Amino acid sequence: MAMQKYNEMDSHSRSALLEKLRADYAGAKAAGHKLDMSRGKPGRDQLDLSEKLLTVVSSSRDAITENGIDTRNYLPTDGIAEAKKLLGDIMGTDPDLVFVGGNSSLNLMHDCLTFAYIHGLPGFAPWGSGKVKFLCPAPGYDRHFAMTAHFGFELITVPMTPTGPDMDIVEELIKDPEVKGIWCVPKYSNPQGITYSDDTVRRFAALCPAAGDFRIFWDNAYAVHDLDPANPDKLLSLSGELSKNGKGDMAFFFCSTSKITFAGGGICAVSMGKDDFIWLKKHKALQTVGYDKINMLRHAKFLPDSAALTAHMEKHAQLLRPKFRAVLDALAPLKEEGIAAWNEPRGGYFISLDVLPGCAKRVIELCAGAGLTLTNAGAAFPYGKDPEDKNIRIAPTMPPIDELVRAMGLVCLCVRIASLEKL
Amino acid sequence: MAMQKYNEMDSHSRSALLEKLRADYAGAKAAGHKLDMSRGKPGRDQLDLSEKLLTVVSSSRDAITENGIDTRNYLPTDGIAEAKKLLGDIMGTDPDLVFVGGNSSLNLMHDCLTFAYIHGLPGFAPWGSGKVKFLCPAPGYDRHFAMTAHFGFELITVPMTPTGPDMDIVEELIKDPEVKGIWCVPKYSNPQGITYSDDTVRRFAALCPAAGDFRIFWDNAYAVHDLDPANPDKLLSLSGELSKNGKGDMAFFFCSTSKITFAGGGICAVSMGKDDFIWLKKHKALQTVGYDKINMLRHAKFLPDSAALTAHMEKHAQLLRPKFRAVLDALAPLKEEGIAAWNEPRGGYFISLDVLPGCAKRVIELCAGAGLTLTNAGAAFPYGKDPEDKNIRIAPTMPPIDELVRAMGLVCLCVRIASLEKL
Repeated sequence: MAMQKYNEMDSHSRSALLEKLRADYAGAKAAGHKLDMSRGKPGRDQLDLSEKLLTVVSSSRDAITENGIDTRNYLPTDGIAEAKKLLGDIMGTDPDLVFVGGNSSLNLMHDCLTFAYIHGLPGFAPWGSGKVKFLCPAPGYDRHFAMTAHFGFELITVPMTPTGPDMDIVEELIKDPEVKGIWCVPKYSNPQGITYSDDTVRRFAALCPAAGDFRIFWDNAYAVHDLDPANPDKLLSLSGELSKNGKGDMAFFFCSTSKITFAGGGICAVSMGKDDFIWLKKHKALQTVGYDKINMLRHAKFLPDSAALTAHMEKHAQLLRPKFRAVLDALAPLKEEGIAAWNEPRGGYFISLDVLPGCAKRVIELCAGAGLTLTNAGAAFPYGKDPEDKNIRIAPTMPPIDELVRAMGLVCLCVRIASLEKL
Repeated sequence: MAMQKYNEMDSHSRSALLEKLRADYAGAKAAGHKLDMSRGKPGRDQLDLSEKLLTVVSSSRDAITENGIDTRNYLPTDGIAEAKKLLGDIMGTDPDLVFVGGNSSLNLMHDCLTFAYIHGLPGFAPWGSGKVKFLCPAPGYDRHFAMTAHFGFELITVPMTPTGPDMDIVEELIKDPEVKGIWCVPKYSNPQGITYSDDTVRRFAALCPAAGDFRIFWDNAYAVHDLDPANPDKLLSLSGELSKNGKGDMAFFFCSTSKITFAGGGICAVSMGKDDFIWLKKHKALQTVGYDKINMLRHAKFLPDSAALTAHMEKHAQLLRPKFRAVLDALAPLKEEGIAAWNEPRGGYFISLDVLPGCAKRVIELCAGAGLTLTNAGAAFPYGKDPEDKNIRIAPTMPPIDELVRAMGLVCLCVRIASLEKL
């Protein structure tokens, strides 16, 4: 069947098509689906890839590090050398300046914000004592935005471009001394899968913010999460560029193994410049005796070098490629019908779908009505408000492929209905 | 040799004795000891007791909870049912109102303080917006005091009595609306090993603080850590007493398995009244997707019921009894010499040694000079300042028994020297 752009159809054809699609929708509803594509959770098959992580530290003897630290006991607060190396390598930062956390890098981001809010960064007033604005490249990660909003910071939207945040706008906004930070997912960004260009990274490293306590929150959540590991996107090292510019303290780097090993049972880290690292360790020491070092050692033994990590991530890619393919194949006709656009990510966890303006909420509502949960409309924007109500985040990793195909059939049906209702 | 009280000796005998002891000290120094009794860390033999914890979840299949939750994946934020039950039972609180954390209950305490500081308790202004005073029964746990001092709260010392904090003073101090909380280690208190009497618990449950957002921080760190499990100290349930009085929201309960399984790789929890629990979950959801549920499940499988827990804690007691005995035996002569006093704890991790006023710092300095690290002088007091400079916290659990005996020989020698220097 030759596709026709919806906006080129006459109104009679559109009405007839809508009627037919509504009948299809009624049928889909009656089928009693219970599908979930709301969050970027790994599938069970992906989790199975790390089964050996559960047994790699099996005895008391196994629990001792190369330096003789008994991981079962307390301390040191910043983690074991093996884990600092593993996560420092992923972030591209100096292992000596890596603080290893528990299973949640989000929690470490919250800690950094908390310490800045209550105590202030080295030499600066607590953020809680004044007004704070935070830059939010959008669409972006909903949990980032929600966290800074929860601290009472004002979120300022920065549009994303195919090469990263619009740096002209960033360079302008940081002239405001109330702007204290920016959220970045620099590789395979959530949700668009965009990797920042070298030029973007260099412009980040050259920023001269009015606030001396401005920090780039560089959440490299998908650093090694390539769909085509033989030909991955390459992200220029922000850490390296900052050092060249003598601005080593301007960024906080984050990563985790949540989407490498176990989403709920991985390890994570934060890295930063030397002065900030001393600052972080001081405040962390008042908050905890340190994180689970047994799990750090498990990870270091399970992923002993970069070859092991690469081989492991290739297995993830093998499982994820068909899922991303299935979503893209399902979406394809919508392009010819002129009612949707999306990018084809080369890694990460999401596909960012743009439907006709004013239609995203309706699509998500229709999907929910037929038993498919999608991420809330507007989630990828500050305050959960998509100014054009057109963005939908598709998370293809969790459902088995047959469910995914059914879910995407439903998504496409709902996009068509919502589009015809709008046109 | 018949012991003589030092203060009854003539000055000539004292000088002669001091000379002899100094010679002994020079010998001890030359021996090149490297001993550490500074922290309440479990011994390696104790950690070995939980070796099976490392293998109790060994396969992907093992990682699924009774309710079908895959512990390897994200969510739920407040933990799995099995762990809520285990830790709720230890705290004596409703499992539905238990939030399970990672390996650090200290971190959960810090979270509660952070959320109160930034957002305020339900219906109240953020603590950060005004002056906050915190009650500190002393001697007490140094990390508690340091944490609240770090938030900028004013620490107010409450003297400990053999039945717990001096409740006359507590009842008086809480009339001040700036007093927002009190630290308690109600069973086998750190460092004295005191268990609060029923009367003390009832008076806590009957408190009518001026501040509606006053909270008792009830850190039951040694809830099941009896040295004589057949005849343990019994702590009245604060949770039960509060409920009777309709004051279910006045306490935050904490516990951890740090000294049950692995000090660095356990699980922990916080429990509280219903409104506060909703408040906590709301703020935690902005901070993390939840803690390591695989480790929660490990613990639930390793300690499936109260009989298993009791049997496990008896094994700890078997290892710890000789260590506590060795310390008490070593100290015994000091009593006859009239230069020290201490209590005999029936559980917990410490012996609280009181030397002559003005001597604690000197004893610790002398010990350090001969290669024995003790907890800093004054650590058990707010701001690290022991008003009488007499308290020394002895942590007998970590060193093997032969080291412990050598260390205690050194402690006694240094107490004698410091006492003679003072008299």
